[in-house]
Amino acid sequence: MQPFVFNNPTKIVFGADMVAKVGKYAAPYGKKGLLVYGKQSIKNNGVYAKVTTALADSGVNWVEHGGVKSNPVLSHVYAGVELAKEQQVDMVIAVGGGSVLDEAKAIAAGALYSGDVWDFFCDKAWVKQALPLITVLTLAATGSEMNDGGVVTNEQTQQKFNIGSPNLFPKVSILDPTLTYTVPLDYTAYSAVDAISHLLEGYFTSADTATPLQDRFVEGLVQTIIESTDQIFAQPDHPDARATMMWAATWALNGLSTAGIGAYAFPNHMIEHSLSALYDVAHGAGLSIVMPAWMSYASERHPAKFAQFAQRVFGCSAANEQQLVEAGIAALKEWFIKIKSPVALSQVDVVPEDIPAIAANATMLAQKWGLKEYPAPVIEDILQCCR
Amino acid sequence: MQPFVFNNPTKIVFGADMVAKVGKYAAPYGKKGLLVYGKQSIKNNGVYAKVTTALADSGVNWVEHGGVKSNPVLSHVYAGVELAKEQQVDMVIAVGGGSVLDEAKAIAAGALYSGDVWDFFCDKAWVKQALPLITVLTLAATGSEMNDGGVVTNEQTQQKFNIGSPNLFPKVSILDPTLTYTVPLDYTAYSAVDAISHLLEGYFTSADTATPLQDRFVEGLVQTIIESTDQIFAQPDHPDARATMMWAATWALNGLSTAGIGAYAFPNHMIEHSLSALYDVAHGAGLSIVMPAWMSYASERHPAKFAQFAQRVFGCSAANEQQLVEAGIAALKEWFIKIKSPVALSQVDVVPEDIPAIAANATMLAQKWGLKEYPAPVIEDILQCCR
Repeated sequence: MQPFVFNNPTKIVFGADMVAKVGKYAAPYGKKGLLVYGKQSIKNNGVYAKVTTALADSGVNWVEHGGVKSNPVLSHVYAGVELAKEQQVDMVIAVGGGSVLDEAKAIAAGALYSGDVWDFFCDKAWVKQALPLITVLTLAATGSEMNDGGVVTNEQTQQKFNIGSPNLFPKVSILDPTLTYTVPLDYTAYSAVDAISHLLEGYFTSADTATPLQDRFVEGLVQTIIESTDQIFAQPDHPDARATMMWAATWALNGLSTAGIGAYAFPNHMIEHSLSALYDVAHGAGLSIVMPAWMSYASERHPAKFAQFAQRVFGCSAANEQQLVEAGIAALKEWFIKIKSPVALSQVDVVPEDIPAIAANATMLAQKWGLKEYPAPVIEDILQCCR
Repeated sequence: MQPFVFNNPTKIVFGADMVAKVGKYAAPYGKKGLLVYGKQSIKNNGVYAKVTTALADSGVNWVEHGGVKSNPVLSHVYAGVELAKEQQVDMVIAVGGGSVLDEAKAIAAGALYSGDVWDFFCDKAWVKQALPLITVLTLAATGSEMNDGGVVTNEQTQQKFNIGSPNLFPKVSILDPTLTYTVPLDYTAYSAVDAISHLLEGYFTSADTATPLQDRFVEGLVQTIIESTDQIFAQPDHPDARATMMWAATWALNGLSTAGIGAYAFPNHMIEHSLSALYDVAHGAGLSIVMPAWMSYASERHPAKFAQFAQRVFGCSAANEQQLVEAGIAALKEWFIKIKSPVALSQVDVVPEDIPAIAANATMLAQKWGLKEYPAPVIEDILQCCR
């Protein structure tokens, strides 16, 4: 194990109908919030009414900043920052999935900063302070509800970059699994892929291999996500499966699975970020396209870990380590196919001629993240295997 | 899954030689601490020198409150509270294992309370505030370094009772595994038993059985604790095994394994508390004596969970569920014997004639915790199986 600091102060309020408590938990942070949300869905499914009723009942006013896109964009963040400053809100209240939460984090940081909020994403400035953030999660996937990071796309520069600071942990996150019962199965699948990718990227890239506890956390989470997703596909409003999926996705990216594993990287996310920065591909869909090919590439450096994954997560057995490695990757890819998450670029209308441009875009992130083992030709090779 | 609130704000600073950073992390909380520790061991093994040097280097002064016993006693807590008040310390700095940390929590609460600190243990008062607590862990076992509880024995009334409040989470806990390299093997074994007991009591008593994620967390933790303890027995200063054991014991009782499982209980701890309140038995030793018999009793209510435990943790197979249940309990008991943790009252010189008195004592705790399914005759029956 390697040295680390672990500190995750977010308060999680979990359970059916907990959305009604958002006012109670928001009130200690002030009288006026910026209510950040996405498209019309929360108005259609009643979540908006539940949230605003709860806020009003607790004496919390709000100004609205709806219209967050999936893969949130910088121009919309700018508008939110301006509104938050102009209206002098005390807090940001985010109601949605990872995109909404990520944009809300950027706004919370930008509202207390005199410069350009994109500075934080380019490492030109640190987030020294941010407005308190309260979240109501409607899609279990990104873990943003219990971590200190977020991702935004700058449409001008076509950069999908991330922000991170201990000041961006939500103060309180309401995890009400009933709000996810109506999430369509395609997005349920993409969410599962995203959470699994968060877990496996650290697991397969960590510098330290003597981390049996972290390994078992990851393996148990991946098994549980697969099992719960299968249950949800059989019954979309399965209370225990939706609840378990929500809690598992939270723990898939809140610092626990990577604490003590030393240096690690997110190369699958890196390549996917370019895909969804350049094309309108759902994040999880992009991840399931890239992941099997990336795993094959990464398995050459850590074959033993891939063999362990195959045995423990999928119960594979094989004559030798290499066969185990391949069996594990194949099992995961087959599961992606089963849940109808795409596994080829052609399924999202990306043609082979586009691959060099995607790879070139991804190298910007490789540079930002210091991933020297992923120069453009390596990324191109991986993408060629995803055609 | 059941509704819950999860909020664990303790900052963990983990790694070899992190003890040298205690001053840096204590300084933001004030200029003067009450330094709580146990017997002479930290002076003999150099930990005292490392801690006090680090505090002095960061401008933190301290007054000393040494001499904490294992199974800490109320009279010593009173002395600590008096000293903390008299010296007007800004924080409590605990250096030791679970006993030292638990006593430090009681002192931190008592120092800001005008009444009798025992009120908190008898549920006559709530801990509304407490001095900030900084801990340096020297024995991985109780999880006190990342939770909000503690246990103290009132020698007058022979009650070993617990305290709990969100205000008792340590602000910062330094987890330096090198400080545990010299822990003797008997106490290493008792620590493993304690951590396993924390995990299995929730696992086997939870009201909700549809908690696959929590189950896998527990199973992975128990497997890892067993594996690491075996490695430590082969090489007491095994860096990875000591580090893994330290981190696993922390997660065995910090709220994660029980979040969402609904009502649960600690009946094995309940019975053991009476054993160590009445006799000078190490806590972990008492637990390994009671646990197999308690498990047999508890397995009648949840046989499927015991069968799952046997299969997943020990890889048992058997012709039917009952045989699996018994195989799992037997495997754990055999492992206790292997690591030389006692499995019979006779091994700690408790004679059968004492059993009624132990059971009578335990019923006080059964009442406090509301465990109606454990009247004195049931506890006696369990203890009779531990002779």
